[in-house]
Amino acid sequence: MSKKNLNVGIVGYGFMGRTHANAFRKVVNFFDLPYTPVLKAACGRDEEKLKAYCDRWGWESSETDWRKLIERKDIDIIDICTPNDSHAEIAIAAARAGKMVMCEKPLSMDGPQGEEMVREIEKAGVANMVWYNYRRVPAVTFAKQLIDEGRLGRIFHYRAKFLQDWTISAELPQGGAGLWRLDAAAAGSGVTGDLLAHCIDTALWLNGNMDSVSAMTETFIKQRTHSLTGQVQEVKIDDACAFLARFGNGSLATFESTRYARGHKALYTLEINGENASIAWDLHDLHRLQYFDHRDRGNLRGWRSIHVTDGDHPYMSKWWVPGLQIGYEHTFVHQVADFIEGVGSGQFASPTFRDALETQYVCDAVLDSAKTGQWRDVKHA
Amino acid sequence: MSKKNLNVGIVGYGFMGRTHANAFRKVVNFFDLPYTPVLKAACGRDEEKLKAYCDRWGWESSETDWRKLIERKDIDIIDICTPNDSHAEIAIAAARAGKMVMCEKPLSMDGPQGEEMVREIEKAGVANMVWYNYRRVPAVTFAKQLIDEGRLGRIFHYRAKFLQDWTISAELPQGGAGLWRLDAAAAGSGVTGDLLAHCIDTALWLNGNMDSVSAMTETFIKQRTHSLTGQVQEVKIDDACAFLARFGNGSLATFESTRYARGHKALYTLEINGENASIAWDLHDLHRLQYFDHRDRGNLRGWRSIHVTDGDHPYMSKWWVPGLQIGYEHTFVHQVADFIEGVGSGQFASPTFRDALETQYVCDAVLDSAKTGQWRDVKHA
Amino acid sequence: MSKKNLNVGIVGYGFMGRTHANAFRKVVNFFDLPYTPVLKAACGRDEEKLKAYCDRWGWESSETDWRKLIERKDIDIIDICTPNDSHAEIAIAAARAGKMVMCEKPLSMDGPQGEEMVREIEKAGVANMVWYNYRRVPAVTFAKQLIDEGRLGRIFHYRAKFLQDWTISAELPQGGAGLWRLDAAAAGSGVTGDLLAHCIDTALWLNGNMDSVSAMTETFIKQRTHSLTGQVQEVKIDDACAFLARFGNGSLATFESTRYARGHKALYTLEINGENASIAWDLHDLHRLQYFDHRDRGNLRGWRSIHVTDGDHPYMSKWWVPGLQIGYEHTFVHQVADFIEGVGSGQFASPTFRDALETQYVCDAVLDSAKTGQWRDVKHA
Amino acid sequence: MSKKNLNVGIVGYGFMGRTHANAFRKVVNFFDLPYTPVLKAACGRDEEKLKAYCDRWGWESSETDWRKLIERKDIDIIDICTPNDSHAEIAIAAARAGKMVMCEKPLSMDGPQGEEMVREIEKAGVANMVWYNYRRVPAVTFAKQLIDEGRLGRIFHYRAKFLQDWTISAELPQGGAGLWRLDAAAAGSGVTGDLLAHCIDTALWLNGNMDSVSAMTETFIKQRTHSLTGQVQEVKIDDACAFLARFGNGSLATFESTRYARGHKALYTLEINGENASIAWDLHDLHRLQYFDHRDRGNLRGWRSIHVTDGDHPYMSKWWVPGLQIGYEHTFVHQVADFIEGVGSGQFASPTFRDALETQYVCDAVLDSAKTGQWRDVKHA
Repeated sequence: MSKKNLNVGIVGYGFMGRTHANAFRKVVNFFDLPYTPVLKAACGRDEEKLKAYCDRWGWESSETDWRKLIERKDIDIIDICTPNDSHAEIAIAAARAGKMVMCEKPLSMDGPQGEEMVREIEKAGVANMVWYNYRRVPAVTFAKQLIDEGRLGRIFHYRAKFLQDWTISAELPQGGAGLWRLDAAAAGSGVTGDLLAHCIDTALWLNGNMDSVSAMTETFIKQRTHSLTGQVQEVKIDDACAFLARFGNGSLATFESTRYARGHKALYTLEINGENASIAWDLHDLHRLQYFDHRDRGNLRGWRSIHVTDGDHPYMSKWWVPGLQIGYEHTFVHQVADFIEGVGSGQFASPTFRDALETQYVCDAVLDSAKTGQWRDVKHA
Repeated sequence: MSKKNLNVGIVGYGFMGRTHANAFRKVVNFFDLPYTPVLKAACGRDEEKLKAYCDRWGWESSETDWRKLIERKDIDIIDICTPNDSHAEIAIAAARAGKMVMCEKPLSMDGPQGEEMVREIEKAGVANMVWYNYRRVPAVTFAKQLIDEGRLGRIFHYRAKFLQDWTISAELPQGGAGLWRLDAAAAGSGVTGDLLAHCIDTALWLNGNMDSVSAMTETFIKQRTHSLTGQVQEVKIDDACAFLARFGNGSLATFESTRYARGHKALYTLEINGENASIAWDLHDLHRLQYFDHRDRGNLRGWRSIHVTDGDHPYMSKWWVPGLQIGYEHTFVHQVADFIEGVGSGQFASPTFRDALETQYVCDAVLDSAKTGQWRDVKHA
Repeated sequence: MSKKNLNVGIVGYGFMGRTHANAFRKVVNFFDLPYTPVLKAACGRDEEKLKAYCDRWGWESSETDWRKLIERKDIDIIDICTPNDSHAEIAIAAARAGKMVMCEKPLSMDGPQGEEMVREIEKAGVANMVWYNYRRVPAVTFAKQLIDEGRLGRIFHYRAKFLQDWTISAELPQGGAGLWRLDAAAAGSGVTGDLLAHCIDTALWLNGNMDSVSAMTETFIKQRTHSLTGQVQEVKIDDACAFLARFGNGSLATFESTRYARGHKALYTLEINGENASIAWDLHDLHRLQYFDHRDRGNLRGWRSIHVTDGDHPYMSKWWVPGLQIGYEHTFVHQVADFIEGVGSGQFASPTFRDALETQYVCDAVLDSAKTGQWRDVKHA
Repeated sequence: MSKKNLNVGIVGYGFMGRTHANAFRKVVNFFDLPYTPVLKAACGRDEEKLKAYCDRWGWESSETDWRKLIERKDIDIIDICTPNDSHAEIAIAAARAGKMVMCEKPLSMDGPQGEEMVREIEKAGVANMVWYNYRRVPAVTFAKQLIDEGRLGRIFHYRAKFLQDWTISAELPQGGAGLWRLDAAAAGSGVTGDLLAHCIDTALWLNGNMDSVSAMTETFIKQRTHSLTGQVQEVKIDDACAFLARFGNGSLATFESTRYARGHKALYTLEINGENASIAWDLHDLHRLQYFDHRDRGNLRGWRSIHVTDGDHPYMSKWWVPGLQIGYEHTFVHQVADFIEGVGSGQFASPTFRDALETQYVCDAVLDSAKTGQWRDVKHA
């Protein structure tokens, strides 16, 4: 079988630049795909860092201007790993140039900007995807399968949290490389767009549309020194955000995220309570799914701790043998695999830009609710 | 040492009648107290059930009219274990008769009624207490000690849930003995007064006053058959309630309760995140406290699972030896012990009626917020 | 219904004196039994301590000589809570006097002594029982039910441990009240008779007869000061003991006990692996049973954490409501209830003296194997 | 910096062929090493499978005769991934040809054969290593650091298990590709060499030399059909093995392995109890270390669940960010990194052939003890 190559041009060489490069390199060793991704070109502004990145990961060439990258005829996919404030411009330009686009999450700075991106990408008709990677943790994908099978029955409750503790120190500066997530101008929002966006994306996928929300946000540390200028500036992001929600299926939900939960590094948790069964999962032990089935014999009911490493669990037949766990990086490999499968089949893998716009609408409603102290309806794509 | 007796007259012989009787009987075997409680008289309307209850627990006498019980000269303490709608009347009458009053939670049907109870009980000057027993789970009392020591530092987050799953079946009737908790007329509210009241009481104790809330409630099953009349009636209680809150100390909180969380029998959980340390606890493993201390050496930090059964843990020197757990019933024994200590010292043990009124105010704000869709400030006692 | 009383005379007022007194007092509040136990008389040598014990628990009378107690006509049951070296003498005298006998574990100092006790008790034909209380943790009793149902299928493996850490300090004295467990003359052995005896009793009950063992023991601290004499003496007990075993059903087993396992207070754990299902339990979370069933759908298999607090779990209908746990002391209440049921039915509840002798034989084989370095066959009763 | 390449020639393309290829490919993306491994040639007997393996992993060339591979001048390292019975011949030939040798575990079929391998490899003076990969799980490496720091103090107990359940079905055939581990002729032994060898290697590394052992083994299914010939043959491997051990440092140990522990896929667990602290770890949640420190304040003592994903945990600064776990495959990457570091520094990374021979001696003593029913002293390298 002769496979065609798909040449990838990546923009950004930071943390996500590493996770994506690893995924593009590694996917071919584990998955049989209709196309082979090639690490064709990497783009970034700092030439020295860019060179080091290309050397380490084997990117064949480099560009320091993303517009140049988009102009190149030998690039099939533009993969965007830059801070949030540049997603739209790059994605739209890439779409207009007929490139497939893979974009880091969140899709955009807000709903209206996201709408424009969706309009352009759909006009271009190119394959597109947003890197909400946690959908492809095998345990989470397995949860989706169980829901689709109808094992849970009517859903009553959904709850999700994403707890971190890395910004508690008032000494931590904001802004600049590695710290742009604390800078509202670059990030758009704080934990809402960074962490809750993940929770929302998964929730919409597992539990359907959200109707309305009531939110609160807080900025615990009001001022921080800027890492580049050294100036003390107001902190404009939300350090914490919690919200109540009602889903279209009648279920109630609570969502919460913070970077001030001492003891939690990256504790994304979710739980769904259905009439017949419940499911729970967390990122700190991502290879396990907790499952309770009311149809088990009465006195034998209990939460099952399922070690999601068997061949009949999603994606796991590609990896090792039962009992041997995979980790965080593999979610990106799965995403590349599904994206390329989608290109092959013409059925673009989710979440597409349009799917991700729905998350953006929820974020907008959440932030507006927090600002106004009112319940807000969620707009739909 | 000659000890004076304290004669107890209990009203109600249901589930709480059992937990209280057990506590009164048992406390003297484990605690050295200034007074000895005597199971003097039990009161209830069903003579047959009342007799069985007295026989089983050794109540010396019985009454079928609580007013008679209150009139008796040989009764020192009136202990109220009836449905919520009769708390006020009995408590006020008892107070006016100069009896000490122990009252099951929640204190009252709502804040205004609770205010009247506080007014009367304080006018009478008698010892009084509300049975929010979970404060006296050793692990929870220990959490309070750690907070009072200042080990957590500034508090950023509080979260609590109380999840059950016993009302999911639409076949379950409502109303009548054993099912009055589903009857709004007897219970006042659903999960809010029954379960969230516990969460709120603990929270106010551990984290101080609550300022404002935004809530939502839901009644999933809209109609149920009444257990006595057999008639299909509208369900008026809240099956589920979740709310956001802001505390006076600047921390954010989420609270949730439901009887539709498949897989959870009585899962009361709480977690507090402070600047220096965090604490978590749950009722399904009530003998453990989870504790994370940021001051531990960096690479040795982890959540400690503390088996709260050592002699230097609250109340535990009274029981067995390290590693041997106590259970649910012991929280009531602790409450009796502390109540009697308080009578001895003149410093009434908490939560007093006044303390419990504060919980009532939060419940009122929560229910009003859920009804109006607006944030509500919490009134203070 | 008129119930006959069973008058109990207890010998010993130490730790076990408390657990038994509590059980005798409490059982009538929760169980409906054919006879009512009465705390008739307590016996001990220290008059002051004895008085305090009687006052606290409501023993109606006292004796300072156990022979006097046995002579009393108003005593039906002799309950033995003394150090191991006096079990035989008291039990045999009681049996000869026609008293029912309840004896703390281990039954005897060794197999031959146990044989004599069995001979005498069976000659007397009186009800008899040994307080291996852990059989009656609801989760353990439930495990027995599951095994008897055949849910596990052919058994391949059994493993048990009992880990403590309270004797690690070399400063800890040995001998005398509260410390007789470190004195070989009073205790017979160290962890083998104290802790492994529990593990062995449960194992024989759950898994049938043991055929042969290979053991090792160790005494980590070679000398300790005697608590009464102040003299430094050789430590003669086993601080730790581990052994391999083969059961009659063909399964392999490992057993281990120590008082030098830092971090474990009373961690009795057991696990059984069968062809179709496995079971695990531990004393630090005694209200849970871990259960794995291979017959569950492949990708939904996982260890179920069963919260053994439902009405259809052993003994639990007598206590509270689902989700509310009981603790250590309740195992003794269950044992009293079953003993009295046995007296009523004439089918004496296990473990009888004869059952407990089997454990003694295993202990003998273990200690002899450790001494000789050879595998040893286990004698059978 | 110009880096010299190290050309790898691998023998075997089975499960271990995949884990090694992945490690060689991936190490350069995450570690800065003095040499760059190159996937130069792969060797196997089935040409079709060999081609597929080379294509998938990017091996530059192939050989169907391992002798040819060894003769090649362009090969620096021979990596042996074949069944156990061919390790010695290949390793010795490679050593004589002056190649560095990396050999899958266990080193050899038995101690004497291992001695010859050590003699030859040391005579050749080439870098050598055995793939006991679990030493390089970050949590296990961290345990080693804590022990070396002296945090545990005097060691009392070591216990390890490796439990699987994949051979319970009597229908499972033995022998041939994928099933050679059930064939004593190819594997040498059953669980002892396959699973316990891992436990022993880690134990010797963490706890020093073992002095003596008493073991038992069992073969539960006595006959199986051969996968290639279809003939029913006697099963000659050990399905299960358990042993007691004494270490040179005075600690006692228990070891157990089986493929008949229903519910456990690859549950390698270890625990060490020291005077001051204890450590526990298991492979099913390999990214966590359990740690108990007696020096913590008394009432705050508890087992800490350390999420070993911080930058100051071994190897973890090379990967992602705190809270994001790595998995099984990364242990092989670490092993390659350390091997290449060792080549660069001249200090060969452990476990060398000589280190691995010590494990072989323990296995020999274990199997001999099981056969004879006697304690056996362990020979030392």
